[in-house]
Amino acid sequence: MIERLHDEQRRGFASDNYAGILPEALEAIAVANVGHQSSYGADLYTEALTRRVYELFSPAAQVFPVFNGTGANVLALSAMADRWESVVCAESAHIHVDEGGAPEKVSGLKLFTVPTSDGKLTPAGIDAAIPDRAGDQHWAQPRVLSVAQATELGTVYSIAELTELAAYAHGRGWSVHLDGSRLANAAAHLNVGLGELTADVGADVLSVGGTKSGLLAAELVVVLNADAVRGVEYSRKTLMQLASKQRFIAAQFLALFDDDLYLRVARHSNAMAALLAGSVRELTGIEVTQVVQSNAVFATLPHEVSRRLMEQVPFYFWDETRGEVRWMCSWDTTEEDVRGFAELVRRELGVGA
Amino acid sequence: MIERLHDEQRRGFASDNYAGILPEALEAIAVANVGHQSSYGADLYTEALTRRVYELFSPAAQVFPVFNGTGANVLALSAMADRWESVVCAESAHIHVDEGGAPEKVSGLKLFTVPTSDGKLTPAGIDAAIPDRAGDQHWAQPRVLSVAQATELGTVYSIAELTELAAYAHGRGWSVHLDGSRLANAAAHLNVGLGELTADVGADVLSVGGTKSGLLAAELVVVLNADAVRGVEYSRKTLMQLASKQRFIAAQFLALFDDDLYLRVARHSNAMAALLAGSVRELTGIEVTQVVQSNAVFATLPHEVSRRLMEQVPFYFWDETRGEVRWMCSWDTTEEDVRGFAELVRRELGVGA
Amino acid sequence: MIERLHDEQRRGFASDNYAGILPEALEAIAVANVGHQSSYGADLYTEALTRRVYELFSPAAQVFPVFNGTGANVLALSAMADRWESVVCAESAHIHVDEGGAPEKVSGLKLFTVPTSDGKLTPAGIDAAIPDRAGDQHWAQPRVLSVAQATELGTVYSIAELTELAAYAHGRGWSVHLDGSRLANAAAHLNVGLGELTADVGADVLSVGGTKSGLLAAELVVVLNADAVRGVEYSRKTLMQLASKQRFIAAQFLALFDDDLYLRVARHSNAMAALLAGSVRELTGIEVTQVVQSNAVFATLPHEVSRRLMEQVPFYFWDETRGEVRWMCSWDTTEEDVRGFAELVRRELGVGA
Amino acid sequence: MIERLHDEQRRGFASDNYAGILPEALEAIAVANVGHQSSYGADLYTEALTRRVYELFSPAAQVFPVFNGTGANVLALSAMADRWESVVCAESAHIHVDEGGAPEKVSGLKLFTVPTSDGKLTPAGIDAAIPDRAGDQHWAQPRVLSVAQATELGTVYSIAELTELAAYAHGRGWSVHLDGSRLANAAAHLNVGLGELTADVGADVLSVGGTKSGLLAAELVVVLNADAVRGVEYSRKTLMQLASKQRFIAAQFLALFDDDLYLRVARHSNAMAALLAGSVRELTGIEVTQVVQSNAVFATLPHEVSRRLMEQVPFYFWDETRGEVRWMCSWDTTEEDVRGFAELVRRELGVGA
Repeated sequence: MIERLHDEQRRGFASDNYAGILPEALEAIAVANVGHQSSYGADLYTEALTRRVYELFSPAAQVFPVFNGTGANVLALSAMADRWESVVCAESAHIHVDEGGAPEKVSGLKLFTVPTSDGKLTPAGIDAAIPDRAGDQHWAQPRVLSVAQATELGTVYSIAELTELAAYAHGRGWSVHLDGSRLANAAAHLNVGLGELTADVGADVLSVGGTKSGLLAAELVVVLNADAVRGVEYSRKTLMQLASKQRFIAAQFLALFDDDLYLRVARHSNAMAALLAGSVRELTGIEVTQVVQSNAVFATLPHEVSRRLMEQVPFYFWDETRGEVRWMCSWDTTEEDVRGFAELVRRELGVGA
Repeated sequence: MIERLHDEQRRGFASDNYAGILPEALEAIAVANVGHQSSYGADLYTEALTRRVYELFSPAAQVFPVFNGTGANVLALSAMADRWESVVCAESAHIHVDEGGAPEKVSGLKLFTVPTSDGKLTPAGIDAAIPDRAGDQHWAQPRVLSVAQATELGTVYSIAELTELAAYAHGRGWSVHLDGSRLANAAAHLNVGLGELTADVGADVLSVGGTKSGLLAAELVVVLNADAVRGVEYSRKTLMQLASKQRFIAAQFLALFDDDLYLRVARHSNAMAALLAGSVRELTGIEVTQVVQSNAVFATLPHEVSRRLMEQVPFYFWDETRGEVRWMCSWDTTEEDVRGFAELVRRELGVGA
Repeated sequence: MIERLHDEQRRGFASDNYAGILPEALEAIAVANVGHQSSYGADLYTEALTRRVYELFSPAAQVFPVFNGTGANVLALSAMADRWESVVCAESAHIHVDEGGAPEKVSGLKLFTVPTSDGKLTPAGIDAAIPDRAGDQHWAQPRVLSVAQATELGTVYSIAELTELAAYAHGRGWSVHLDGSRLANAAAHLNVGLGELTADVGADVLSVGGTKSGLLAAELVVVLNADAVRGVEYSRKTLMQLASKQRFIAAQFLALFDDDLYLRVARHSNAMAALLAGSVRELTGIEVTQVVQSNAVFATLPHEVSRRLMEQVPFYFWDETRGEVRWMCSWDTTEEDVRGFAELVRRELGVGA
Repeated sequence: MIERLHDEQRRGFASDNYAGILPEALEAIAVANVGHQSSYGADLYTEALTRRVYELFSPAAQVFPVFNGTGANVLALSAMADRWESVVCAESAHIHVDEGGAPEKVSGLKLFTVPTSDGKLTPAGIDAAIPDRAGDQHWAQPRVLSVAQATELGTVYSIAELTELAAYAHGRGWSVHLDGSRLANAAAHLNVGLGELTADVGADVLSVGGTKSGLLAAELVVVLNADAVRGVEYSRKTLMQLASKQRFIAAQFLALFDDDLYLRVARHSNAMAALLAGSVRELTGIEVTQVVQSNAVFATLPHEVSRRLMEQVPFYFWDETRGEVRWMCSWDTTEEDVRGFAELVRRELGVGA
C-alpha cells in the first residue's frame, strides 16, 4: 500500500484540476471494477452512457469518451474540419493559447482568432476579424466556429447570444463547436438543461468536460449533428484518445449525470467564486476584471500583494504584466476556504487591522 | 450511486485489457485522492515515481506519465525521430498494425517494416529489409529501431538477443525504443530486473505498460538516454498525453512498483498462459503456433470450433484466414478459468467424451 | 548572359531526369512568355489544357497542374484519402521508397505495402498482404490502391491486368490512383490511347508525368472520378504545388500533347531501352532482371564491372547488394549512345577482344 | 508548335506574378538546356550558384533552390522550428493569410501573430502580443520570428529597424527568418547589397524570391546561420520542393544575380510604383494608404470607381470592406502603362474632363 505524500487539508485557488476525484466518481470506478468487459468502448457502461447522453443532450447525440480536454477539442475539431480548412475562435481561447499548439500540430488545423474583451465572440467581432474569402484557394477556408462555454475568462454566453452566434456561423457555412470543459458551470449559471444549452442553441459538436467537474481522465466528445463530422471513431484512435478500459470513463460520467450531480457540483463551485468575488470586490487596491458567471474570479491587485498571497495559497498570474490573477474554485472548495482566503487578501492589502 | 451492469464472474481470454484495475492500484488512487495537488506533473506522487524509476531502471532515467500505450509509443518515437526521419519495426509490430496509423498521422513518422516469423527482429532480418541509404535525401532516414518486448506474438527476446540488436542499431546510427506494453511479462519470463532488461541492454527510450498490468489509463515513457530525445515535455502536451491529475497515474505506478507487484502480476498471467498452452497443446486438431513466453497463447484450430468457443468465452481471431486465434491471460485470470476453458476446448474439439 | 558550364555531348543512363527540356516544350514557354496572364491557373493556357485533357483522357476529367512527381502523388493521395485512412501500394513503389516519406510526413498517409517480384500488384498478392479489417478502428482503413504504370521496375500492366486490379480495388471499397510518372511510356508500349489506359480501365485519379517526358517542372494531377476526391484545389495550395505562373506548365503540356509528341518521345526512349537490353542480354556475366517494357533496363553484373562502367558513363546501382543496376533511356538518348555504351559493357565484361 | 492564346500587349496591376519570364532568365534556361546534368542539385549550375550566393550574402551561406514562395517559407520555417515550437509573425504576413495554412497543415507550425498598421513588426508590438511563457509546456514555444522584407503592405524596414528586430528576437532566444519574396525591391529601395540587408542585420535564414523578379518556378532558401536549422536537405524532399532538373532554377538565378540584374529589375518596378502613386496621390477621392517603398501601391477609392477600373485593367481589392485596392508593378510594367492607368483613374474619379 502506498503512502499518502501530501497534506490532505491544503487547498488553493490555482485550478479546478488541482482538486481530486469526486467520491461518487471513485465509487463508480469501484462498482465497474469487477470481472471483464469488452475494451475500446464495447462495454455495458458505455452503452448506458450512450442512452443517458440521448436523454440529456439530444436523441441524435453520439458520444465518444476520451481522456482529456485537449483530446476532446482536437478530436472534435479534426472531425469537423478537413485537412485544408480552418477554425475560428476567440484570441483568448484555450485551443489557441493553452494547448501547446495541439490543433495545428496534430491535425494541421489553422486557427483564425478574433479579439474580445471578455472571451465572448460576437457576430460583429467575427465579421471585423475574418474576411469573406470563400472559395479563395490561398485562404484556409474556415469551417468551424469554436465557442467556449463558459469562456476562458469565466464568462457565460446567454442562450440568446449562443443562438445568435450559431445562426451566424451556420449562415457563413460553418459548423459550431462548443468547448464545454466547464459546460456544467455554464448550465448552472444559466439554470438550463444540457440540451437547452447545446442542441437547442444550434451547436453541432461538443467537448464536455469531466475533469473539472471532479472526474479522473474523463471527457466526452458529443456529436449532435452527424452531418458536421467525419471519421470520429477512427480519428479517436489515431489521436490516441481511445481508452482500452473505457468502461471506467463511462461509469464516472454515469455517476456525474446521475441525479444532477454535475449541476450540484457546478452550482457549488460557481457559488464559491461568487462568494470570493463578493468578499474582495470592495477592497481598496483590488479590481475584479471580469463578471463572475462561473467558477473563476479574475482580478488585478498589486504585484507584491499577489506574490505574498501565492506564498501562502497556490494560485497563478493570468496576465503578469497587467497584474491580473485568476482564482479558480473547485468541487471541493469550502466556504471556509473562501472566507479564509478573502481574509488573507484583506490582510495583505493592508485593509484589515 | 451507479448500478453494476455486468456479470462480475465472467472472464475470458480476449485481451489483457478486458480485465479491470488491480485492487492495489485502486487503493493507491484513493490514497492520493485527498486535498489538492499541483496539476500536470508538479505533484508529490510524480516526484516519488521519478525517484522510484531511477532505482528500477537507471539513475539517468527521466519519466513521463501518459494515458495509453499508443500515446506512449507515439510520444517516444516523436521525441526520438525528427520530421524527416523514419522508424524501423517488425511487420507485426503494434505500432504498424494496431494503432490506426497514429505514428504516421500524428507525427508524420514513416515506418519501414521487417518481416519476421515470431515477431522478433534480428540484425540479419533488418539488413535484408532495410538498405543502407544513409545521406540519401529521397529515403526517409531511419533514426529509431522500435523493438517490442514482449512482442505482439507473445515471444520474448533474451538478454543476449536484445543486447545484440541494440548494438546493431547503434552501429547503424539508430536509437533503440522498447515498446514495453508487456515489459513486466518479459521481465518475469527472463527473471531479470527492469534495469537489466532495458538500460543494461542498451535501450534508449521505453514505453512501459501499466494498463495491461492492471492500471487505469496509466503508461510511462521512460527516457534512459537523454541524448536520444528532444522536446519530450512539450510534445507530451501537443500529443494530448499530459494528464492534469497526473498524481493518480503516478500513484498507481508507485503501487505497481511497490514490493515487486508488477512482477507478481506478470508471473501470474505468464503462468496462466503456460498452463493453458500445456492443457491444449497435445489435443488433436489444435496447434500452438508461437512459443509461449509471456501471457499469450497463439493457436490454430478448426474455424467452426473457434466459433463455437467464442460463443461461450470471449476471444479473437488473430489471423482468420489461417484459423489462428489468440488467447490472452490477465492479472485476474484464475487457474479455474484456464482449466474450465481448456476443458471446453477439448470438448469442442470432440476430444472429451 | 550566363555561361554554359557543362559538356553538351555528355549523356548517360542514370535517369530520365538527367535530360533537359524538349525543344518543343522550351518553344512553348517562349510562345506563352509575352504580356500578362492571370496567375494561379486562371490563364488561357490552363483553360486550353483543360479542354485537351477532356479529349485525351475523359470528358469528366479535371486537371491540376503541379511542379513535380512527388507533389502530384501526394496531392492525388491526399485528395483521395481522409486523415484516418491509408494507401495500399507495391513494396517497390516510388511513393514508399523514394519520396522521403512525403505521403506520411506531409499528409499523414499510412502506406501498407505488398511484396512483388516485378513491381506489379495482383489481387492475390494484395489479398495475402492486406487483411480485411473494414470497420476496425485500430487499423488505418485502406482507401486507395496506388498503382504505378509503368512500375518502378520498368514493367507495364496490360489493359486486362489494370482492369482486373481496378475492379478488385473498387470491390474492396478503394479508389484507384495511377502513378503515371511514365504513363506515356506505358501507353507507347501498349500502343493505346491515354483514355483507354486510364479512364477505361477504371482509374479514378492520375499523376501524369511531364518531367520524364522532357518538360520543366511540370506534372499533372488528373481527376477522372470527381467522387473519389475532396478539396483538391485547396490542398494543391497547402501542399505548395500551386504555381503562380501556371501558364508555363500548361503551355508545355499543350506542346507535349500536340500531335502525339508524348507518344513519339516515349516510343523513342522505350526503343532505346529495348535496343540496349537486346545488345547486352546475351553477354556472359550479365543478366537482365526485369522484362523491358518501358525505358528502363535492370541487370545484374559483377560489381567491379559496374564500377568501371560508372567511371565512364553515369548510372546507378538499383540494389547494390545484389549487384543490380538500372539503365534509363531518355527522350534525348541516341542510338549511338546506346551502341557505344553496349560496346563498353561488352569490353568491360571482357567479352570484346 | 503551340499557338499564342493571349494578347501580348495587355498588362495590368494585379500582381507581379502576372508578368512572365525575364528574357535573361529564359535565355539562361536555353543555355543550360543541352546534354545531361545530374539531377536533384548535383549539377554544375547549382554549384556555381552556391559560389555566387557566398559572394552576395555571406561566406557562410548555404543555398537550397525550391519551386515557389510558399515552398521556400515552409521549408525555411520547418527547418528552423521543431514539431512543438511556433513562429511569430505580423498579422498581415503572407504566411498567415495567403498560403492556405500551409505552415500549419504541412509542418504543424503554430503561428502567433502581432497586429501592425503598416506590416512592420516592432519589439514593442511583439512584447505586447507575445507573452513570455518560456518553458511553459502549454504554450507552443516561439522559436522563429518571421519578418517580411519588403512587407505584404509594400513597406520596407530600414537597416536599423531590422538590426534592432533581429537583436530583439535573438534576445528572446528566437531565430530570424526573412521572407524575401520581394527582397530585391527592398534592397533597391534601401540601396544596399544583399549581404548588408540580410547577414549583416542578423538574419538567420532567408526566403529569396525569384518569381516576382521575373523567374520561372524559382525561389531560394538561403541559410546564413547553420545552427538555426536542422535537416533542410531532407525536408526539402519531403516538402516536395526538390526539383529533379534543378540546373534550370540555378541557371535562372545565375542570370538574375549577373551584373546586378535583380537590382535593375527591382529599381524599375519600384520606380513604376512611385510614379503611379505620385500620379494619383493628389487626386480628390483617392488616398494612398501605405508609404510606397517597393513595387506596390495601396489606396482607397470609391467602390464604383474601383469596379469600373477593374473592368478595364486587372487589379484586386486588398480590403474590399474598406475600399482599399492594391496596384502592383512588375519588371515589365512600362512608364506608358503607368501614365495610361493614372489617366484612367483620373478620368474615372471624374477629375479629368
